[in-house]
Amino acid sequence: MRRTAGTIENDGYYEQEWRINEHAGTHVDAPAHFTAGGRTAPELQPSELVTPAVVIGIAVRAARNSDAVVTVDDIRAFERQYGRIPDDAAVLMYSGWGAKVSDPDAYRGTDAAGTLHFPGFGQDACEWLLRHRRIRSLGVDTLSIDPGNSATFDTHLILTGADRYGLENLANLDRIPRNGATIFVGLIPYERGSGGQARVLATW
Amino acid sequence: MRRTAGTIENDGYYEQEWRINEHAGTHVDAPAHFTAGGRTAPELQPSELVTPAVVIGIAVRAARNSDAVVTVDDIRAFERQYGRIPDDAAVLMYSGWGAKVSDPDAYRGTDAAGTLHFPGFGQDACEWLLRHRRIRSLGVDTLSIDPGNSATFDTHLILTGADRYGLENLANLDRIPRNGATIFVGLIPYERGSGGQARVLATW
Repeated sequence: MRRTAGTIENDGYYEQEWRINEHAGTHVDAPAHFTAGGRTAPELQPSELVTPAVVIGIAVRAARNSDAVVTVDDIRAFERQYGRIPDDAAVLMYSGWGAKVSDPDAYRGTDAAGTLHFPGFGQDACEWLLRHRRIRSLGVDTLSIDPGNSATFDTHLILTGADRYGLENLANLDRIPRNGATIFVGLIPYERGSGGQARVLATW
Repeated sequence: MRRTAGTIENDGYYEQEWRINEHAGTHVDAPAHFTAGGRTAPELQPSELVTPAVVIGIAVRAARNSDAVVTVDDIRAFERQYGRIPDDAAVLMYSGWGAKVSDPDAYRGTDAAGTLHFPGFGQDACEWLLRHRRIRSLGVDTLSIDPGNSATFDTHLILTGADRYGLENLANLDRIPRNGATIFVGLIPYERGSGGQARVLATW
């Protein structure tokens, strides 16, 4: 929600004021979002915000099944094709959901019973990445790192419980290399932030 | 201004909601902030947000005179010592003002008449950089790219009139190389934004 707070005509400068939740738009979930005592946005270090990134694509499967999740098999298939996930990486899911973002109903996938339907990371994949690859974060091109139909938020709880952060509502993941990009997570360090808006830029 | 919008105890997750002006904290001034018809935050391209940076230090002079500004002589002295300012650079002023940021009165430098006093870029320096070096932006470790005592905002008007952006309230400029760093300007692309919060990270 925004309002105009100044105009060039009346004030000499144009500016807006926003009322905004820390989890709107492209944003970070800090460990404190789901884990009591977890680190807040300003406690994430710059060295954690500049990381290698890999993109695991499940768009073909997700187009047929809105409840599709990234599995351990997807990760193994990714590594056979694109090489091992580097240390300290952001592991990003590309589901193709970004194409729906201008239609909130389609993006949320709410059914008659009120359950959401969009892809995310399965609990097993999250646990495997934490155990076998030294990941920095998980990121998705959907509303949540858990699939929309999750009622228990297992991936959020496991990831933030391991002091890692999540990235949600990412855009343009089909335009960066599957393995080899570096991302800069421009997280606004909101005081006591449970996360917050972040501009994420990739170079390669 | 912030309020708690959810707690782990009551909601299963912790989050906050903010009421925030686009020009609070470390932020970008988009061309639209001071120039009618100028580009807004989402219209700045990713390629404009990843740039070489140089740091022009005036902290010794600013410690004696809060109205000190970056001059053309400062730029020439910088280039003699650190080499030519690269194309498409962010030219950043280090005044030492970051040390005052936890004391708003000292940071603003308001005098008895209500005039502010802190360093900025002089109009001549801004014009010289636009004419003789292909700069991308100007940045400062103070509240404004114009010095605090400016009533006419010449540097804002010239810079945004030239379709370039400003960076204000930058931190830690004494910790990056004078010439040779690359900065990532993580600008939140607020709809119709006159600028907005930005996390700025440097690598070198």
